[in-house]
Amino acid sequence: MRFAHFLLALAVALPASAAQRETRIPDASLKVADTLRQRALADDTAWKLVESLTTEVGPRPAGSAADARAVKWAQAKFKQLGYDVVRLEPVKIKRWVRRSERGEVLGAHAQPLTLTALGGSPGGTVEGDVVRFADFASLEKAAEGSLTGKIAFVDYRMQRARDGSDYRNGSQIRGRGPSAAIRKGAIGFLMRSAGTDHTRRSPHTGATRFADGLTPVPSAALANPDADQLARLVALGATRVRIALNTAWEGEATSCNVIGEIRGRSKPDEVVLIGGHLDSWDLGTGAIDDGAGIGITMAAGHLIGQLKKHPARTIRVVAFANEEHGLDGGRTYAETQANNIVKHQLMSESDFGAGRVYAFNTSAPEHANAAEQQIADALKPLGIELTDKGGPGPDLGPIAGRGAAWASLLQDGTDYFDYHHTPDDTLDKIDPQSLAQNVAAYAVFAYLAADAEGDFGSAPKAVTPPRE
Amino acid sequence: MRFAHFLLALAVALPASAAQRETRIPDASLKVADTLRQRALADDTAWKLVESLTTEVGPRPAGSAADARAVKWAQAKFKQLGYDVVRLEPVKIKRWVRRSERGEVLGAHAQPLTLTALGGSPGGTVEGDVVRFADFASLEKAAEGSLTGKIAFVDYRMQRARDGSDYRNGSQIRGRGPSAAIRKGAIGFLMRSAGTDHTRRSPHTGATRFADGLTPVPSAALANPDADQLARLVALGATRVRIALNTAWEGEATSCNVIGEIRGRSKPDEVVLIGGHLDSWDLGTGAIDDGAGIGITMAAGHLIGQLKKHPARTIRVVAFANEEHGLDGGRTYAETQANNIVKHQLMSESDFGAGRVYAFNTSAPEHANAAEQQIADALKPLGIELTDKGGPGPDLGPIAGRGAAWASLLQDGTDYFDYHHTPDDTLDKIDPQSLAQNVAAYAVFAYLAADAEGDFGSAPKAVTPPRE
Repeated sequence: MRFAHFLLALAVALPASAAQRETRIPDASLKVADTLRQRALADDTAWKLVESLTTEVGPRPAGSAADARAVKWAQAKFKQLGYDVVRLEPVKIKRWVRRSERGEVLGAHAQPLTLTALGGSPGGTVEGDVVRFADFASLEKAAEGSLTGKIAFVDYRMQRARDGSDYRNGSQIRGRGPSAAIRKGAIGFLMRSAGTDHTRRSPHTGATRFADGLTPVPSAALANPDADQLARLVALGATRVRIALNTAWEGEATSCNVIGEIRGRSKPDEVVLIGGHLDSWDLGTGAIDDGAGIGITMAAGHLIGQLKKHPARTIRVVAFANEEHGLDGGRTYAETQANNIVKHQLMSESDFGAGRVYAFNTSAPEHANAAEQQIADALKPLGIELTDKGGPGPDLGPIAGRGAAWASLLQDGTDYFDYHHTPDDTLDKIDPQSLAQNVAAYAVFAYLAADAEGDFGSAPKAVTPPRE
Repeated sequence: MRFAHFLLALAVALPASAAQRETRIPDASLKVADTLRQRALADDTAWKLVESLTTEVGPRPAGSAADARAVKWAQAKFKQLGYDVVRLEPVKIKRWVRRSERGEVLGAHAQPLTLTALGGSPGGTVEGDVVRFADFASLEKAAEGSLTGKIAFVDYRMQRARDGSDYRNGSQIRGRGPSAAIRKGAIGFLMRSAGTDHTRRSPHTGATRFADGLTPVPSAALANPDADQLARLVALGATRVRIALNTAWEGEATSCNVIGEIRGRSKPDEVVLIGGHLDSWDLGTGAIDDGAGIGITMAAGHLIGQLKKHPARTIRVVAFANEEHGLDGGRTYAETQANNIVKHQLMSESDFGAGRVYAFNTSAPEHANAAEQQIADALKPLGIELTDKGGPGPDLGPIAGRGAAWASLLQDGTDYFDYHHTPDDTLDKIDPQSLAQNVAAYAVFAYLAADAEGDFGSAPKAVTPPRE
């Protein structure tokens, strides 16, 4: 998942009209959901999908040849899985490529440093003395011009948490650190990787963004052990470092949101949307980010499609394009659906790995609280509790901002940031049982929302630009 | 440590002459050892040494500029630590360098593979279909010519063990696999890394050796997740891979064994030798292999040197040159000391990481069994038991082959092969408490052996060439 939309905790508590009919889920639907849950727990469709995507396609950064292969893969899989409608929505993206990267300490303690360019970093080679900062606030406090000719190094160590909450700090440094350093005169930017794997020599990439009017400088993340090393060297005395990145923006390309639908039996133009993102960073094979989300939601839709009787509304599964480096798929979808907000019954994206779901929430207003509780009750056998946390997920941020109601299935992300955006994001990090529990949660939630009598509060509203 | 000498279990049970005086350790010495043990457990000299070596020198492959810096580092540290004698023993080595390396799957599933060249591999680029073998025996059974134009892939998954015993298989594949593949016609060789870290994208390097008369081919180890990936791809159908290595032998260079001595008070020309190796592979910073051994033994000697009364014999600490890629330091030492075998009271090398010592053994003949038991008793408070396993350690293999008596302090290597020869061999893998326990074990053992009345059986014998 991407940095900005991670903890988009929108408490969209719309005032309920007193006259509004209460949303309820029929008992018969709850019985079907029970069967669905049990089937999902015993089903390995999601595992096979993630295995296939990560093995046969592998890394698939947006705009690459592999990204195009991933689009074809998703299209073919939707068809194989019996989806009623499979379609592509073109998405314009800007391609950024990493060709090579190298870091090294110069001088008396000469040695290589393991680093990776931040997404969007310009290429180039810079050499300079390193100035270390404990965190983003310290960098911001540095005097004007104090980094002239220097390389800034923000040495913040991300803390582990089930909800991944310290990614707030990690992603802030990655997103805004380079610009802050440039403003003080820095010629290069280094950060300790935004990750909780303190012993892996796998640096964490991810998008950065240079503020308008600044000249971008080479910007990279050090693997955690290399950040330890650089901190020790800086403590010993002046430390000169060379950063050599061969990266570039390579113009525009077209990717696609790949959309599969299980048509609703009675209100087919209303949709429950679930999905993940199809693109990945280039370093790993995108298993937890976000092969898992693709596998979970495609499998959940498939299992619903296998039911004798489809739910009232359509289940729409979207494999979004270029979440990682532009959120282009989510933005495009929100634009094309701008006039269909009210047709979006409820939406949820899976983009936080493959850890077990432990909590559920929706943005639903008061008139849908009972239905929300009914879904929560149906999820309880999976170890899932109702919560007031969560958000729509990154790709659904734009359309949620236009008023579409969202649901959140919160996953245990205790180890998510050990692997996120690193070479280590590979299939072996996924536990098949946890993955199946996610499928069960998505299938149950989506089915019940699609069969509910009444809505979850989607209503067009003035566009709030997504946080960035 | 290097592959060949790992489990050199020499049961050198020389027949004791009935007339031979029994070796005993005086009670007063045992009391001193008790103090020494307690001091060592509270001492952080070893930690500081490993921190300094891995940080200030970093990776130090034999013959590199960093290797030369490591020699200076060791010389300076011996002096700072108050060693009575510090000297260099020149060691001729052959330099092999890794400049770059890349692996990739070609065709419909095109994607990069994380690999590292085996030490000694020639450079070059080869492309070919992959033929997978479950283990070394299967490769050896392949029909003559069956690999013509192909790349052999030995997919053996090393098993975890406290004593690292499955390295036997891993190192066999690394050492002999390439030659076996070439004999069947292969143009390239790949192996699953000889490591127990099944989820780290850190490939394990290490020396290979091409049999005489064969034309070497590019040979590399895949990180474990990449071996998983390649195995899945091969199961799907014909899989073509490109291996591009830029590596080379770069002629001869001179490195040094660095030797520090705490002079014995009454028999200074007799020595108890302890040590580790100063060189490391280039990928990591050589913390567990073998910064730990250097730190442990230098610190142990230092603590003995701080005693008011030195032991009867000299404590000689040797930081061996180029263990990893030729065992040149150990061979050179054995040659220069060929006429001093009997002067070597007892010897032990620390080269298995920084895990706690759990067992002790010596090659001593019957007349020294009581003394061996006395040392074992002195080690017992550290959780160490007498065993019949072990060997002298790689660098002491050559001189042990000439008849010098050895002791073995067996370390818990449960996680040693997670990091061994990988980029992940960094300081953070060492637990300071375990390191101090090692120092205590070495200090106690070396002191008692040096103060024993009588010997441990060193006697010149016809040279047995070390296994390779």
